[in-house]
Amino acid sequence: MKVWKGNILSAAGPDRLEIFEGGYLVFDAEGVIQFVGPELPSRYAALPLEDWGDRLILQSFADMHLHAPQYPMVGIGMDLPLLDWLERYTFPNEARFAEPDFARQTCRQLAAELVRCGTTRVCMFSSRHTDATLILMEELERAGVTGYVGKVNMDRQGGPCLQEGTEESKRETLRWLEECRRFRRVRPILTPRFTPSCTDELMGFLGKLAVERGLYVQSHLSENRAEMALVGRLCPDCAQYWETYCKHGLWRSHTVMAHCVHSDKRERDAMRKYGVLAVHCPDSNLNICSGIAPVKQMLREGVWVALGSDIAGGAMPSMLDVMTSAIRSSKARNIAEGDEVLTVREAYYLATSAGHRYFGDKPGFAVGNPLHAVVLDDRRLPIPARPLTMEERLERAIYRCDDRDIVAVSAAGRRVK
Amino acid sequence: MKVWKGNILSAAGPDRLEIFEGGYLVFDAEGVIQFVGPELPSRYAALPLEDWGDRLILQSFADMHLHAPQYPMVGIGMDLPLLDWLERYTFPNEARFAEPDFARQTCRQLAAELVRCGTTRVCMFSSRHTDATLILMEELERAGVTGYVGKVNMDRQGGPCLQEGTEESKRETLRWLEECRRFRRVRPILTPRFTPSCTDELMGFLGKLAVERGLYVQSHLSENRAEMALVGRLCPDCAQYWETYCKHGLWRSHTVMAHCVHSDKRERDAMRKYGVLAVHCPDSNLNICSGIAPVKQMLREGVWVALGSDIAGGAMPSMLDVMTSAIRSSKARNIAEGDEVLTVREAYYLATSAGHRYFGDKPGFAVGNPLHAVVLDDRRLPIPARPLTMEERLERAIYRCDDRDIVAVSAAGRRVK
Repeated sequence: MKVWKGNILSAAGPDRLEIFEGGYLVFDAEGVIQFVGPELPSRYAALPLEDWGDRLILQSFADMHLHAPQYPMVGIGMDLPLLDWLERYTFPNEARFAEPDFARQTCRQLAAELVRCGTTRVCMFSSRHTDATLILMEELERAGVTGYVGKVNMDRQGGPCLQEGTEESKRETLRWLEECRRFRRVRPILTPRFTPSCTDELMGFLGKLAVERGLYVQSHLSENRAEMALVGRLCPDCAQYWETYCKHGLWRSHTVMAHCVHSDKRERDAMRKYGVLAVHCPDSNLNICSGIAPVKQMLREGVWVALGSDIAGGAMPSMLDVMTSAIRSSKARNIAEGDEVLTVREAYYLATSAGHRYFGDKPGFAVGNPLHAVVLDDRRLPIPARPLTMEERLERAIYRCDDRDIVAVSAAGRRVK
Repeated sequence: MKVWKGNILSAAGPDRLEIFEGGYLVFDAEGVIQFVGPELPSRYAALPLEDWGDRLILQSFADMHLHAPQYPMVGIGMDLPLLDWLERYTFPNEARFAEPDFARQTCRQLAAELVRCGTTRVCMFSSRHTDATLILMEELERAGVTGYVGKVNMDRQGGPCLQEGTEESKRETLRWLEECRRFRRVRPILTPRFTPSCTDELMGFLGKLAVERGLYVQSHLSENRAEMALVGRLCPDCAQYWETYCKHGLWRSHTVMAHCVHSDKRERDAMRKYGVLAVHCPDSNLNICSGIAPVKQMLREGVWVALGSDIAGGAMPSMLDVMTSAIRSSKARNIAEGDEVLTVREAYYLATSAGHRYFGDKPGFAVGNPLHAVVLDDRRLPIPARPLTMEERLERAIYRCDDRDIVAVSAAGRRVK
């Protein structure tokens, strides 16, 4: 067991910060939190203590939507809307995951950047390539990133480079699941790319697999108007996009739906009712002009929302950037439509506790949670004109710090930086 | 004289990149560009050559609006709209510039960060304090930042800490101008904070001074609806905000007006007609929910626009961030109102040539311009799936690089990093 001492700030609720200035965190050999509080109980007094001084101990970040094979194109080609962007930039880029060496190099770089930025949990898309997906999972495990990774299924509209046959997609999915047994910290998640990419037959197969094996599912939902119109044409039997997943048994508790930019009240109600996680990807949604998701409204309605970088629709792998992006997007929405803005507390909650909940955690640094934490040193920032409160230091860190300032990272109690 | 070799990209016009892959830049002992092109003319063959290899040689950045005394509060307190934000956070913060030691420490940190980020020219607000303003100018000169700095004038609505008497403001302005003679690279600019902060008497005095001494003027314009309503109440004789400057002779060629978020066609026409520079501060405008300026429309109309970080309404001192912020803001505007989006080329132009024009430069790395340049090493970024074009590398650098990647900075030919 071990003790960390420092200024501990965790998101105990969507609008509730729990702060222990000069507080203590105790975690056991399995990395599970045993205690958090302002004073160290005497029973822990003999444990080895790491004193982080005046630094901030924050929850590490959960990036609940990103595409590993798009990492090489991060920051380019954002002059097109979704469907054209996929065809012109994304699909040719993803096709290179057919080459194991290229996949290895990309995954290693990405995993290292995630750890540097304090992202210790992910829900990630690979490409359709089974071998590259296994390489991705290996590299994440090696670097210390935990979470879910999906081999993408796409037997429709994938173009010459990327599309699979339906039978091939089924067969490769089963092979991949078999191979996944060797991983401990990274687990498989079923990943139909999105409705336009999958035939009914493939969707039905995946829905059955999800139920039979108790697997989670991730996909995309209502990101862009043209995409929604396309789904409407492809699935005339469904009144709304979400029903194209639901009719195949893929709309379940813990199904992850990225974007939900244009989800209306009925679609949002279906999310809440089924326990679907909506992943807000504010940077991506602006970059490719998809729109601005009504996050604040989702929070008010009790929809489960977390954040995603959506690399490479998003250009910023650091969840510090994604949080400010979420706040700024909510302000753009405020300017255009008068909706309430997202607070710093809420953004911190969305990037941490809301995502960690996917893995069974209670909010904040709760006893029983595995320790997912970063230590942040904010001394590189300008000297303030008056002493700052801990909450102000959190705000400033979110707006101004980067991976340089993250001096330690714990992923489930394992020190990975 | 000296030669730089590398991949040279400059903004030759709002939508025109001039690219010399493995090209040459020749500048003389005064730092003035003598040649730029794909091959080195034989007359320069004997000059000392600095080979930057595959790195990008870009124009350095002009930050045409920021507030030095607000630097200590960067990244905090962005939960209020402009007028409340000024009273609650900004004015008490600026009041500490009364202390020379605090001012010195702040200015030194700010100047160092600007240089690190490749900002070599500024148009900057100090506080109302003459001595702190001189300290700011000293620190900028020492670090190698060039441009204009203004002692703020405010004899109205400044609260107990920050307001000056009218006579005091005049007297201190004259004393400050006298002291400014000792600076070579940083020059004074008249700086009535904004109309609500200055009486007619003070404005008239400054307008007269501008004409008599040929001084430039900077201030704020149409940032926020409540501010505009206040100006309307204070100046019932003026139909529009800009006229409150114009009637005192402050609306002239090279007058710098920050924000212009809500400037309508008539106000924008007045800018174009008089040669006023509108400074777009996209990050600030979102952070304090001021709105999103119609930059693309200004460009179409031929209004002169450049970019500003507006520290500390903006949280990001790096103009790389301000460029992406401008693009993203234009996309938020596109989503809300259908206006065209700002391209990467345009953003680069706004952050460089449009600002450098204020100092008499021709667009891009033109012969006769002082060399304001940065060398950017993009090898820290992910390995791409195919060779990138120079323009893609520029886009990626803007979206993804930070001060770590800026390996050299030239301010008017003087190597400052």
